Amino acid sequence: MANNGTIQVGVIGAGRIGKIHAENLATRIPVVAAAAVADIDLSAAQELAARLHIPRACSDYRAILADPDIQAVAICSSTDTHARIIVEAAQAGKHIFCEKPIDHDLAKIDAALAAVKQAGVKLQIGFNRRFDPNFRKVREMVAEGKIGQPHILRITSRDPAPPPASYVKVSGGIFLDMTIHDFDMARYLIGDVREVYTAGAVLVDPEIGAAGDIDTAIITLTFENGAIGTIDNSRKAVYGYDQRVEVFGSGGMVTALNRTPDTHLYSNPEGVHSAKPLYFFLERYSESFLAEMQEFIQSIQHDTTPPVTGEDGRAPVLIGMAAKKSYLEKRPVSIREISH
Amino acid sequence: MANNGTIQVGVIGAGRIGKIHAENLATRIPVVAAAAVADIDLSAAQELAARLHIPRACSDYRAILADPDIQAVAICSSTDTHARIIVEAAQAGKHIFCEKPIDHDLAKIDAALAAVKQAGVKLQIGFNRRFDPNFRKVREMVAEGKIGQPHILRITSRDPAPPPASYVKVSGGIFLDMTIHDFDMARYLIGDVREVYTAGAVLVDPEIGAAGDIDTAIITLTFENGAIGTIDNSRKAVYGYDQRVEVFGSGGMVTALNRTPDTHLYSNPEGVHSAKPLYFFLERYSESFLAEMQEFIQSIQHDTTPPVTGEDGRAPVLIGMAAKKSYLEKRPVSIREISH
Amino acid sequence: MANNGTIQVGVIGAGRIGKIHAENLATRIPVVAAAAVADIDLSAAQELAARLHIPRACSDYRAILADPDIQAVAICSSTDTHARIIVEAAQAGKHIFCEKPIDHDLAKIDAALAAVKQAGVKLQIGFNRRFDPNFRKVREMVAEGKIGQPHILRITSRDPAPPPASYVKVSGGIFLDMTIHDFDMARYLIGDVREVYTAGAVLVDPEIGAAGDIDTAIITLTFENGAIGTIDNSRKAVYGYDQRVEVFGSGGMVTALNRTPDTHLYSNPEGVHSAKPLYFFLERYSESFLAEMQEFIQSIQHDTTPPVTGEDGRAPVLIGMAAKKSYLEKRPVSIREISH
Amino acid sequence: MANNGTIQVGVIGAGRIGKIHAENLATRIPVVAAAAVADIDLSAAQELAARLHIPRACSDYRAILADPDIQAVAICSSTDTHARIIVEAAQAGKHIFCEKPIDHDLAKIDAALAAVKQAGVKLQIGFNRRFDPNFRKVREMVAEGKIGQPHILRITSRDPAPPPASYVKVSGGIFLDMTIHDFDMARYLIGDVREVYTAGAVLVDPEIGAAGDIDTAIITLTFENGAIGTIDNSRKAVYGYDQRVEVFGSGGMVTALNRTPDTHLYSNPEGVHSAKPLYFFLERYSESFLAEMQEFIQSIQHDTTPPVTGEDGRAPVLIGMAAKKSYLEKRPVSIREISH
Repeated sequence: MANNGTIQVGVIGAGRIGKIHAENLATRIPVVAAAAVADIDLSAAQELAARLHIPRACSDYRAILADPDIQAVAICSSTDTHARIIVEAAQAGKHIFCEKPIDHDLAKIDAALAAVKQAGVKLQIGFNRRFDPNFRKVREMVAEGKIGQPHILRITSRDPAPPPASYVKVSGGIFLDMTIHDFDMARYLIGDVREVYTAGAVLVDPEIGAAGDIDTAIITLTFENGAIGTIDNSRKAVYGYDQRVEVFGSGGMVTALNRTPDTHLYSNPEGVHSAKPLYFFLERYSESFLAEMQEFIQSIQHDTTPPVTGEDGRAPVLIGMAAKKSYLEKRPVSIREISH
Repeated sequence: MANNGTIQVGVIGAGRIGKIHAENLATRIPVVAAAAVADIDLSAAQELAARLHIPRACSDYRAILADPDIQAVAICSSTDTHARIIVEAAQAGKHIFCEKPIDHDLAKIDAALAAVKQAGVKLQIGFNRRFDPNFRKVREMVAEGKIGQPHILRITSRDPAPPPASYVKVSGGIFLDMTIHDFDMARYLIGDVREVYTAGAVLVDPEIGAAGDIDTAIITLTFENGAIGTIDNSRKAVYGYDQRVEVFGSGGMVTALNRTPDTHLYSNPEGVHSAKPLYFFLERYSESFLAEMQEFIQSIQHDTTPPVTGEDGRAPVLIGMAAKKSYLEKRPVSIREISH
Repeated sequence: MANNGTIQVGVIGAGRIGKIHAENLATRIPVVAAAAVADIDLSAAQELAARLHIPRACSDYRAILADPDIQAVAICSSTDTHARIIVEAAQAGKHIFCEKPIDHDLAKIDAALAAVKQAGVKLQIGFNRRFDPNFRKVREMVAEGKIGQPHILRITSRDPAPPPASYVKVSGGIFLDMTIHDFDMARYLIGDVREVYTAGAVLVDPEIGAAGDIDTAIITLTFENGAIGTIDNSRKAVYGYDQRVEVFGSGGMVTALNRTPDTHLYSNPEGVHSAKPLYFFLERYSESFLAEMQEFIQSIQHDTTPPVTGEDGRAPVLIGMAAKKSYLEKRPVSIREISH
Repeated sequence: MANNGTIQVGVIGAGRIGKIHAENLATRIPVVAAAAVADIDLSAAQELAARLHIPRACSDYRAILADPDIQAVAICSSTDTHARIIVEAAQAGKHIFCEKPIDHDLAKIDAALAAVKQAGVKLQIGFNRRFDPNFRKVREMVAEGKIGQPHILRITSRDPAPPPASYVKVSGGIFLDMTIHDFDMARYLIGDVREVYTAGAVLVDPEIGAAGDIDTAIITLTFENGAIGTIDNSRKAVYGYDQRVEVFGSGGMVTALNRTPDTHLYSNPEGVHSAKPLYFFLERYSESFLAEMQEFIQSIQHDTTPPVTGEDGRAPVLIGMAAKKSYLEKRPVSIREISH
């Protein structure tokens, strides 16, 4: 820590998600100082630093890793750089917050986790939805036994609009880019997954199909504890971001519905009308981005295990790979097939 | 018709569902006269007839078929008798309302449908949920194009309590006994099914497993039109009968929620509390039982095709068979595999 | 009772509300026989009798009163005839179900109640909303102490469309025609009213103002037990019949919301849309019309006090008179001012 | 403005509401610098300044008024000091954000408004609820004509717990302390009020009665435009802060419901359960405190009229005085009686 007890954090990557974390670190977590921002586009780093009164901007993240006053980094760069930066940051003795996914390649993930283990630093993966108050409430009620033994999980997860085809091509595919959050949610709410089966289709945009991906999917999950589950995904929900979960068990059911910008109800001769869900993840999950960073910082302060570990970052990648294999081979696929 | 234009209907089977139809025919459809009730347990037939002022009770349904004043029958006897009585009723020139399923055996179903066709009588199958005002509204909105092209169907269908194991043994299994309604709903809302995949488990009651059945299932549906869907079933929802559907498409989404006995909201220091869903099918679907019979009678009056045909009775049996095969063989199963 | 234990009931008045009661008596209450219908328009009586297989139709209700086999009458004629028919029916020894209000004149009401008392017959007033499952639930929860001591009552009661001006002129005014149901609801949920204050306006239709009435009102109630309440009325809610109540107390709050024809939710780019409230009282209160008649019959069968007594019929007339006086004199008016 | 374009603001009063405004000014409004905090309790000012990195803390607000670099002040001190500080701040040429109410005394209010007018500075009153996204949506829909001509306004406004009796004594009474927000909301949604009638009671806490105040009230409003309205207040809703509004008109109705901490629904054998409303104003109105300050700053930046003017601060005090007079004199009271 700095001499005044403040934890200095460097932000690597000044894109959309980097901006969120930089802003939270700079203005909403008193014990933290956002000490530096790096981006390969130096002007982006400079602009963000200026807006948030962050003292330093650089184009090479290694400058951050080399700064002895910086204790922790938030890796918000493109996915293909995550594993490498994790290794280097661990070797530099920095605690690491890394956006999901760690990587699309299992060997790289394992190398990154090994480096973290060897260095003894903290690593937290950015599965922010675990920190959404709605889903957290569901998790708490499941953990408290309010629904008895879980039997059925339902997740609906639909984006308001598909990404550009250029992004789709480098995204790793819907399962590693989008459903990976739902796989993590499934693990958060129920536990480890044993097997998956995927039904998928290109219904939203033929360009996505041309890019070798799908845009609509239903994934059946079989959990190690015997429960079963279903995830449905679409890249385009015209009414906005649709993010719901439901856990059904021997003693009851708990659901989390969408959140809306306001609570108005308008009644006219056509019916009763209310607000759409919040538009996309920036709106829906703003509280969760702050909360995950607060807990990361707390895990440094109190030297505890971060709430989303490296293993929590690895497991959904395996599930995503199994889901893709299931789609391609038109059969249920065991997670063991992937991991062994 | 009788000389005063009244359509005389005989009810075959005085059990739970026979009572519902008899009561609707006797008191709620002005153009109809409930003319006779048959049940192998004569006293059950007599009791029902007395309560509803139905003039005739008998133990052998053939007495009803032999009555020239009776134009139509409602077959509410046990499933194993449906196909045979359909054949005999058709040969006797009676219009036929028959409870679902027609049979568990495809050859018997086909024989029954052939007899109906040859006789030129009406046949309507008792998939009452199509007449539920909530699901009908969903269907109408889908048909009107309100959600654009359908992409994803979700059906949740959970009973409040499992049937006795003795019933489970003769029920044909969860797919032909319980999910068959959901398969019909899927066809009603989206269209024909091409392939199914089943994940199932025994989580509610080991006795059900011992009887060779399962009590919890998630079935993935692939439709001929490219849409995909998921059905989740449980034999035991402690909060009551859970009957919801949702159709998501290119232009929007339409959902039907559960119905409750009242609209109260109770706020206290623990939270905001409201009523559970209506307990079971007698409560939830009472309007639909009346509406399906009214439309059956109208199809006789106006000589039109009944709203749920013999083919509509046959198709979900095929899907149910495919779902079972999928569960046993742990792979997706095409409907064609069953029907050919 | 007739020799077979059936209670024979005559229906006086074959208008809109008479038809409802006749149909319920004829088809939905097994222990009852609808024995006769009277209407000054004989053809209306005959038509109703024919449709429901009621054996007798007449133009003079006295023929019903003179029939020794008839034990009870349902008075559904125009308001100005209620008090007189109550007196005659009581003198004829018939039990009496009478539509609200008993009369607009206190002396006539008191004479009618005295005749009932002297004859020792049952009298139930048709405040059907007490039998609505939603409001009944509220009442039960209040009675069970679930909200502690009641502090604030809120009633919203708005019709979908105003009556014709011709009706307004003979209706007794909004307070005795429309709000009278809400005054009864207030007594049902909280207890006797001590004082009222009315703010009223003509906002819907100037013709109503020209007829000497108002169409929009807020009435403040002070109850004998110290609670306070507010009723808001409009003659025209373009989104349908708006019928809500809310009781707030020291331990919580219980609300009854509107009922809808179905539970659909439609999400599109404009928002989330659901069904309007049921259109008007025939739709919203159909169950309550049946339930009030069943309880009237039960009070005859078991010789118990009817659930809505003559006093319950008289009290809201007093409140209505006070509300009107308050509106005219622009000051709070005590119920005692009216009754003494 | 400071040379870099930043608007320097001083906060007067470091109590509960002062802390909120200081935090928003210090961390959430980029164009602003929180330059100083004053509180008669110097340590409170120092503590707040330290936590938010505000450069200056003082015990006398006059030090802030004397600072030429400070352009605007946020007056968050006790109500009895508001009018005096407004006068002095105006004379010092500072723009003024002042918490409600301006004062309980009409002459002092008028003197303060006159000083503001003479100095030509901005004055915004802290009626934060106008900036709540839910109520703002209602206002927008009313303004857009979505409900046609407004006829009926309903406001429910209930606190989760009563203030201490010591506070009650100096609060000015429920109408100037609590209902004043509802009077402002009524003006915001409908327009100027012509007359009020109050029914009030002491039902929550006899100590409040002993302090000469009431804790439960229903206030009827008659608006200048002919609409009517009702406000119900309680000092204690055991289920949390209850803040709802509803505007009914010739073309429809728009309602704003309570907001909850999460969207979970829990179904078990007892019913369906969801979250209580957010606990109190700090939780419910956090967004509105930020939004009102942002708009105040914008009115300085763009030299426009602030969204809540001095007249908007004066009018609800008049209504509050009329409401109290109505309660004491048991009669409707015209606002003109107070203002003339």
